Amino acid sequence: MKLYENYINSIKNVIEEDKARRSRVNYFDKSLTTSPRSKEKFITESKVLGYKPMSSLEPLMNKVGRKEFTDQKLGEHPDFKYLKDTLGSEYHYITSVFIDIKNSTGLFRKYDPNVIYIITNTIQRAAIHTCVIFGGYIHRLQGDGLFVYFGGKDIEKNDSARNALAATSMFTYFVKNDLKKLFLEEGIENIYTRIGVDFGDDQDVLWSIAGIGECSEVTTTSLHTSLASKMQAIANSNSIVVGDNIKSISGIDQVYFDWVKDSSGEIKQRYIFEDKDNSFYYKALDFKWHQYLKSLPYIVEDIAGELFFEQDEDKTEKKRLNELSKTSALLDSGSAYTSSAGIISGEKSSVRNQPHRFHF
Amino acid sequence: MKLYENYINSIKNVIEEDKARRSRVNYFDKSLTTSPRSKEKFITESKVLGYKPMSSLEPLMNKVGRKEFTDQKLGEHPDFKYLKDTLGSEYHYITSVFIDIKNSTGLFRKYDPNVIYIITNTIQRAAIHTCVIFGGYIHRLQGDGLFVYFGGKDIEKNDSARNALAATSMFTYFVKNDLKKLFLEEGIENIYTRIGVDFGDDQDVLWSIAGIGECSEVTTTSLHTSLASKMQAIANSNSIVVGDNIKSISGIDQVYFDWVKDSSGEIKQRYIFEDKDNSFYYKALDFKWHQYLKSLPYIVEDIAGELFFEQDEDKTEKKRLNELSKTSALLDSGSAYTSSAGIISGEKSSVRNQPHRFHF
Repeated sequence: MKLYENYINSIKNVIEEDKARRSRVNYFDKSLTTSPRSKEKFITESKVLGYKPMSSLEPLMNKVGRKEFTDQKLGEHPDFKYLKDTLGSEYHYITSVFIDIKNSTGLFRKYDPNVIYIITNTIQRAAIHTCVIFGGYIHRLQGDGLFVYFGGKDIEKNDSARNALAATSMFTYFVKNDLKKLFLEEGIENIYTRIGVDFGDDQDVLWSIAGIGECSEVTTTSLHTSLASKMQAIANSNSIVVGDNIKSISGIDQVYFDWVKDSSGEIKQRYIFEDKDNSFYYKALDFKWHQYLKSLPYIVEDIAGELFFEQDEDKTEKKRLNELSKTSALLDSGSAYTSSAGIISGEKSSVRNQPHRFHF
Repeated sequence: MKLYENYINSIKNVIEEDKARRSRVNYFDKSLTTSPRSKEKFITESKVLGYKPMSSLEPLMNKVGRKEFTDQKLGEHPDFKYLKDTLGSEYHYITSVFIDIKNSTGLFRKYDPNVIYIITNTIQRAAIHTCVIFGGYIHRLQGDGLFVYFGGKDIEKNDSARNALAATSMFTYFVKNDLKKLFLEEGIENIYTRIGVDFGDDQDVLWSIAGIGECSEVTTTSLHTSLASKMQAIANSNSIVVGDNIKSISGIDQVYFDWVKDSSGEIKQRYIFEDKDNSFYYKALDFKWHQYLKSLPYIVEDIAGELFFEQDEDKTEKKRLNELSKTSALLDSGSAYTSSAGIISGEKSSVRNQPHRFHF
């Protein structure tokens, strides 16, 4: 997506610079270049930017309607940071999001730390910026990954869940498509994400200070924060796993949720948490983020299946109506199939639609 | 170990208080107690303490010789925090330690968040305090766990590795013994640790700022920081897995290191990182922390196999000489066996020592 152009270019640049540096060294002194893992100590060009997203993300910012970006500290959610001074605690709902970037260790086979630093930080920054656009609060950096809260005192519960899903879907698309393309071109091992999201309601989330003194953060003690982290751990490559609470509170159509399955299509784990004594069984679900993205008013799909951001919602609406009439024609033709996800298409691997089945 | 008495008592107290509260509720209004997961919102008694360890750890503090505790911020190692303002970077060695506390989600089957909060935070505080006593710097809180750096500008490389091993060994003993005993008594599911430790040398560790603006930390980009986290993930329950660098830089006898094995004794993974193009293969090793603890001058073992802290090194020395003379008598008797770890004992599962083998 063009939205992430600046981020892709940042990574491209540092890779090009590194190539140029290596070939210079090669040209001037062949004897020094036996190892590609040269350890020369050069200070990296600083690319640390502000909380404000890079300009290519601006159309999304404008669409979502978020324009103010306050520079917020880690571990101090603005609505609960007062707990750091009062040492009190408070019960309040939250949506917890764990974003993990996997396989970046492979970069050490090819690049020096100063190059890797730019690559991983740019990816992390793309995640941070995508989350803040959707109102997320960055609670903690975890290696290349993030722990983000969505929600707070003036945010509706369903908005917190929907925003978390929109942000993580956008970021996953970036990693699975834009970043993958660049890495393929450069012969870099694939990097992928695994994301876990869960919602804990007001009576289930305790906000309080963890740690001691300055070595502390305002954080949540909640089954659903713990489970979000576990969901991230069972997610497949470039997948988003969400708790059942997310499905119910977000109000998003159930066609976008499925069991978490392994590569052979078997259900991995029906319940992420079981409490037999209290007959409490909690589901983890695979979120169909790609389909969900396509349902957003500002996203359109081209013929090749690539997704685009479209500012003009009239156009996306026209496109959608066009799709609808195609589906309708397909149904009329008698060669329509419905997939297990409820998508109607001409794909024969799915279940064939019976002509006017509802008439019988 | 008596060293952790205050921490154990803190947890014991909150469990007792919770029991008392439940029985009060039971006594006065049976109808309200159908669910043990009552959601009443009461503010937890604040037990947030300073950076200074609780008093039962004082003997260890005195022995290690660490008496000053500066309250340090997360994500700003004192020797490198200048990078936050200068936006520069610097190469400098470090020992990275990842401490994970596993299975605490099970607590949600039995307790409300406000009780769990005290339990998990007390365990985390025991870890923090043990690390700071040995000169560790707490870089990040990760759920119940920690990411700690050992080392810095005025610390010798071998000391950084040895201190990391001593601190993690002590903490693992606490969890595997003291905490386990309490949890068994209370019928709480077992909690255990998994720890990963690795050393990256000066040319392999880049210090610089990660994240953006205030939402940032001064952190390391290094294969060995990444691997320490991976080692934590492959560690068995209550085990410490260390990189080969730790073995070589610490100067600790090689009998304390073994392959990481699964429950059937098979080697889990010989190399935690392989770079075939550069013929670089890096080992992860299981650190025999229990044996190592016993080798420390201030730790003694009683007949039941429990470890004790002993301030008076004369006593531990006397004890050690006593052990030595017993071993010597065993060798003389001709019924001594040497285990695969090089420990001489009367245990017949090991290899029998040949009488005066060196005479032949």
